[in-house]
Amino acid sequence: MEPQVIPERSGTAFKLKKGQTLIVIDPKGEQVADLLAFNADDIDEVISSGRTFDYAERIYLSTGNKLYSNRSNVMLEIVEDMVGRHDFLLTPCSVDTFDHFYPDLPRHRGCFGNLAEALAPYGVTPAQIPTAFNCFMNVPIDGETGELKVLPPISKAGDHIALRAEMDLIIGLTACSAPDSNGGTFKPIHYRIEA
Amino acid sequence: MEPQVIPERSGTAFKLKKGQTLIVIDPKGEQVADLLAFNADDIDEVISSGRTFDYAERIYLSTGNKLYSNRSNVMLEIVEDMVGRHDFLLTPCSVDTFDHFYPDLPRHRGCFGNLAEALAPYGVTPAQIPTAFNCFMNVPIDGETGELKVLPPISKAGDHIALRAEMDLIIGLTACSAPDSNGGTFKPIHYRIEA
Repeated sequence: MEPQVIPERSGTAFKLKKGQTLIVIDPKGEQVADLLAFNADDIDEVISSGRTFDYAERIYLSTGNKLYSNRSNVMLEIVEDMVGRHDFLLTPCSVDTFDHFYPDLPRHRGCFGNLAEALAPYGVTPAQIPTAFNCFMNVPIDGETGELKVLPPISKAGDHIALRAEMDLIIGLTACSAPDSNGGTFKPIHYRIEA
Repeated sequence: MEPQVIPERSGTAFKLKKGQTLIVIDPKGEQVADLLAFNADDIDEVISSGRTFDYAERIYLSTGNKLYSNRSNVMLEIVEDMVGRHDFLLTPCSVDTFDHFYPDLPRHRGCFGNLAEALAPYGVTPAQIPTAFNCFMNVPIDGETGELKVLPPISKAGDHIALRAEMDLIIGLTACSAPDSNGGTFKPIHYRIEA
């Protein structure tokens, strides 16, 4: 399958079958893709940062780590990772994020609004959107103080992360809209599904 | 008001009006209380670790920090904190947590099951239970590797944290059921509401 293009500051949703692998590509480097996953047979089962951190016993996730649902089932496993730094702490940027962090910029519905629109045809409501797995987002933590910083991603042009589905899923995926998460520019995200 | 008692390995739910302060007390020391908050007028608005981390720009929260909802509204502000270490990364322990971490112990529904039962009369379903604000839970992070540990709380007998409601809330609160979070024993939690 040819790579699909998610244009800058937009999002999409699609089905990913158990056993298929989703490859999320940063075509230009230093861009972020917010990823959500719902059980295709029951959207009340959803990706959970809290369950994942608990079972992985770490907050930075990479190859071999599994992403769990709120019901403690494995939804995705990271099977390849050229970057090694992603974020699972922060919620998708929204119009409120822009009001808070970028009061001088034009408002934007952000990844949250993009995900809400893309997922609506699958019956997902905005209230069901949890913390996303933010591919390539670089949020280092100071372990002493707990302070976090949102720095430009360390991903280079063409880098990717590959995640294998462990159940039939509905995926939401964006090309992030927030200046700080990608070093101040907006770029597309590409993705590919392998059988 | 006299302190209310949450017996060991149980939970409760109650309304907290805007302007009231909830004081969560660790009567014996080294015990954890999982705290959830829902907008009393619309339970689709719920406490959000991801929003809170984003706006606080830190994952360890204490006096002066605000706990935000998924709609970016302030639900609670920490107005006093005798402990200074709480967790907002991990989901409430559940029967799955026991299967994963304590396969040799009798299964227990955990804080998740206790919260689900206590919140059901308010219309909250299990799928609506997010990552909790875990009062007194001691989960240090290694900022380099991202590794986390669940250590005994640093709270001493009688220590408390006080949170002022910034909207009318439904609160869920537990005395935690997981051995690791409280150093291997089970103890009650006390709480008080001040006008």
